[in-house]
Amino acid sequence: MATTRAKIRLFVEQPLGPGQGIALSQAQAHYLINVMRLGIGAEIELFNGRDGAWLAHLTQAGKRAAMAECAQQCAPQRDPPDLWLVFAPIKKTRTDFIVEKAAELGIARILPVQTEFTNAERIRQDRLQAHAVEAAEQCGGTHVPEVAPLVPLARLLADWPTDRALIWADEALAGTTPAKLPPAPAAILIGPEGGFSPAERARLAALPVVNPVTLGPRILRADTAAVAAITLWQAARGDWR
Amino acid sequence: MATTRAKIRLFVEQPLGPGQGIALSQAQAHYLINVMRLGIGAEIELFNGRDGAWLAHLTQAGKRAAMAECAQQCAPQRDPPDLWLVFAPIKKTRTDFIVEKAAELGIARILPVQTEFTNAERIRQDRLQAHAVEAAEQCGGTHVPEVAPLVPLARLLADWPTDRALIWADEALAGTTPAKLPPAPAAILIGPEGGFSPAERARLAALPVVNPVTLGPRILRADTAAVAAITLWQAARGDWR
Repeated sequence: MATTRAKIRLFVEQPLGPGQGIALSQAQAHYLINVMRLGIGAEIELFNGRDGAWLAHLTQAGKRAAMAECAQQCAPQRDPPDLWLVFAPIKKTRTDFIVEKAAELGIARILPVQTEFTNAERIRQDRLQAHAVEAAEQCGGTHVPEVAPLVPLARLLADWPTDRALIWADEALAGTTPAKLPPAPAAILIGPEGGFSPAERARLAALPVVNPVTLGPRILRADTAAVAAITLWQAARGDWR
Repeated sequence: MATTRAKIRLFVEQPLGPGQGIALSQAQAHYLINVMRLGIGAEIELFNGRDGAWLAHLTQAGKRAAMAECAQQCAPQRDPPDLWLVFAPIKKTRTDFIVEKAAELGIARILPVQTEFTNAERIRQDRLQAHAVEAAEQCGGTHVPEVAPLVPLARLLADWPTDRALIWADEALAGTTPAKLPPAPAAILIGPEGGFSPAERARLAALPVVNPVTLGPRILRADTAAVAAITLWQAARGDWR
């Protein structure tokens, strides 16, 4: 079978290594066999977030069960810089979007946070994690950011590591001169559509680890702010140079 | 009626000025009267892309027709830097997203372009323009980027103004050192999901106005690349500082 340019990439949990057999999930088997019509011997790419990317071949291709065998590593493991994204979940589509973009742009960990003006009482952590996996599969990455459980902002701040800068994209700074971004370890904090409450703003302003930053003179939606802030940090402090 | 923090903002075509009466569209009347339940005297904000933002009050509030009268200007007209976005339309949701984000981040003009690997044969220019209007309404802007008709890339390049730099987000440069971004007048060029064809790449590489740039070591989706490239340009060369 000819190697196509856009190879199918799948995330698996198991360790990857030369000759390693991999049992694919039922959903993956369905996708490979029924949707993509692959057969025994077809080449796919596998990664697990630890061992880089591996070329593998299908060794079993049933309609509900498929096995693959690793041939050789085709890309080394590449972890993003130590940058977290802390964000208040918004509407479903835009929350999905933030997780997808964070995975694409190279975020190490995604922490959904509940604020006073956050609409979401809960999140579907498994669904967001699946989005992060899918984004990594599509963008050729070997790392999948972990999506943490939803926690209240107050609790997150109370336990915040003292050595990790918290970059706060503060709408109130719109139009002011951009500050220098702190290096890793760092985290970007994006508020909900309604912004942070006065009490939350006071709490953030009082924390020594907090670095308020501006994202230009316009008011951005939360999802736009997340992508813009990650981009600026990656270009200035991350692995884009 | 109390002034709410999140005032309703509407784009209109007519000139705005002190005491100016404005006939709102049927859709706007429906939204204000039936959805938002506003009545005569209610305060709204109007902008037309030329005269800044104006506070206005409803003077007629029928179910299908509404009139407003301008009171005073509440924000000056603010045009973005002279940066265009040229992009190959992709799937509907992601194309809508690109237009929305371009309007939010401050793009002067949006030019959809047809490439060899572009799926779209046509675009709904009116729908995309409406998306740009809606984004400006939501993000507090006073400018609405014009969405140009879809044109083939070859024709666009043949007529390209010699004084406008074309910043090409080239996937092939992933991982290389970022180049300095050129100042305005400029345009950002984002290819389709499959990238540009070899012939298109050769044509772009041969043009003196073209500045290839990298957007980091990962492969980004087209919509992510658009937001990232606009962000970097605005921060370095635009009005974010």
